[in-house]
Amino acid sequence: MAKMGQQSWLYNNAIYINASGTAVGPMEADGPLSSFFDQTYDELHCNQDNWELAERQLMKDAIHACLQKAGKDHSEMDLFLAGDLLNQNVTANYVAKELGIPFLCMFGACSTSMETLATGASLIDGGFAEQVIAAVSSHNATAERQFRYPTEYGGQKPKTATFTVTGSGAALLSKRKSNIRIESATIGRVMDYGTKDPFDMGSAMAPAAYDTIKTHFQDMGRSPQDYDLIATGDLSAVGTPIVRDMLKEDGFDVEEVHNDCGLMIYHSDQPVFSGGSGCACSAVVTYGKLLDELVAGRYKKILVVATGALMSPTMVQQKESIPAIAHGVVLVREEGM
Amino acid sequence: MAKMGQQSWLYNNAIYINASGTAVGPMEADGPLSSFFDQTYDELHCNQDNWELAERQLMKDAIHACLQKAGKDHSEMDLFLAGDLLNQNVTANYVAKELGIPFLCMFGACSTSMETLATGASLIDGGFAEQVIAAVSSHNATAERQFRYPTEYGGQKPKTATFTVTGSGAALLSKRKSNIRIESATIGRVMDYGTKDPFDMGSAMAPAAYDTIKTHFQDMGRSPQDYDLIATGDLSAVGTPIVRDMLKEDGFDVEEVHNDCGLMIYHSDQPVFSGGSGCACSAVVTYGKLLDELVAGRYKKILVVATGALMSPTMVQQKESIPAIAHGVVLVREEGM
Repeated sequence: MAKMGQQSWLYNNAIYINASGTAVGPMEADGPLSSFFDQTYDELHCNQDNWELAERQLMKDAIHACLQKAGKDHSEMDLFLAGDLLNQNVTANYVAKELGIPFLCMFGACSTSMETLATGASLIDGGFAEQVIAAVSSHNATAERQFRYPTEYGGQKPKTATFTVTGSGAALLSKRKSNIRIESATIGRVMDYGTKDPFDMGSAMAPAAYDTIKTHFQDMGRSPQDYDLIATGDLSAVGTPIVRDMLKEDGFDVEEVHNDCGLMIYHSDQPVFSGGSGCACSAVVTYGKLLDELVAGRYKKILVVATGALMSPTMVQQKESIPAIAHGVVLVREEGM
Repeated sequence: MAKMGQQSWLYNNAIYINASGTAVGPMEADGPLSSFFDQTYDELHCNQDNWELAERQLMKDAIHACLQKAGKDHSEMDLFLAGDLLNQNVTANYVAKELGIPFLCMFGACSTSMETLATGASLIDGGFAEQVIAAVSSHNATAERQFRYPTEYGGQKPKTATFTVTGSGAALLSKRKSNIRIESATIGRVMDYGTKDPFDMGSAMAPAAYDTIKTHFQDMGRSPQDYDLIATGDLSAVGTPIVRDMLKEDGFDVEEVHNDCGLMIYHSDQPVFSGGSGCACSAVVTYGKLLDELVAGRYKKILVVATGALMSPTMVQQKESIPAIAHGVVLVREEGM
């Protein structure tokens, strides 16, 4: 039985990440993780005519890098699981058109990275696919225009705001052995503590991260000490202390093993308000740096909890609060490769 | 092995639809399938303050009816798989918040009904969930405002336009035996023949339906004669002859067994242009009428191919063509219940 406890999945078969690819924009290329990314651009248009095409290029680059490392062609893939932040997930849809392989589009806002990874692994585990590509993307300028104001408008922001990561991350999953095994996952519930500020996603998402991490520990009979790292997706400097406090109140002290991808991706002196966010934030940090650390043996077992604020401009206008969800995936280093 | 051919899934275990629920708006209640729906409203607001809340109410009604028929509480469900047409899938997200169970949001435009059904069945088959709720919704007024013009604007439309169905359909899936088994599925690829007219979704989607149906026959070694009905989602009067012609050119004559949910849901004299469309179109027809026909034994085996135009206002403004996708699910009547 693959279901564990209330919300978790323990894969019956050994499912591996065979390769990953990342592509990022200029701010991320200037950040501390620059050397972990496969493709970097020095301007937001990524040599394209508009920002939507730039985001699409990033996802294509990430997939291309991933397939190249694996020595595979996209036509060998059984399934493409992808999503992004744009209305109708247009980045994923139009990339799927070019790939020409069976496609399941998922939406979990910035939690989509782990949503696609967990679901992809489960479909391989169940025998529905042999090789799956999971990919997500976000772009600072496409997200700003859609969710807030066009950047040219020059709207001021509070310090609680986050900075949408420009980039894309992709992973190739299969039963073919590699250094990195996808061991388990915890599927989140939608949590909503009533926050309504679209410039404070960290506070909106912290309860979702808390709920998923706590449930993960309970479902799997584990504690923070079982992990070398628990990485949340994009809680930023605002949400990070909140999730730590909430977990501590339940007896789970994650302080020493927790970090947030939104805090890892930029230098503290970059103009990113309280940190990075967006689908690509957890994706490029995980598929770039974290997998590298696992392969190098510096981590043996990590839990990545991608956090998604299910924020909608229409719902904000209608005075609704902002729900959030978080999905977690456990990655373990396989020895003897 | 659950994977069949290039794009199809044959479930290893017997997975059943234990119950379904449907809720619709006034135009659908006036249509020929009225008696098959669990909940009907005589005005578009469905007793709510705005259209987004109305759509949310419809999804809640559909799920409530489904659970009530099954004698189950939502807290017993392991997973909620849902999606809708609104930006950020807000209907599904906010209903998921109220349900409080693990949630995977999917987006396939109007193909989401079969995308969630196929994926839900595969997750049960793989042991990741025991009981899954799959649901989708659409609402004429929320869709018009988002994809075209607010209805109050009174924009004129060509006859190729379709009319978005106001409604929601939900199904409860598990291994618990019932009259209706989910036998197999075919996951679509994104197809794009270059159409750019947002008022002609039938032409945009027909190639996707064609590709999925043709691939289904090839993957499963079947022909049109193996089915009592092949129902496409919302090709309407425009797309229906196109998909039939395309299949006929490949030697698959579906004329006698094919019908389109978008043509079934309204009377020919209702003011719906070329027919119904939207996530709810295939969902309420399938989860209402088609399941009823299976239970009654009038159908033994049907293939439902939900068709989704991955249309985005931003992409239309940027002069991109409209890609489409179609996912198929085979439902069979189980005897001896």
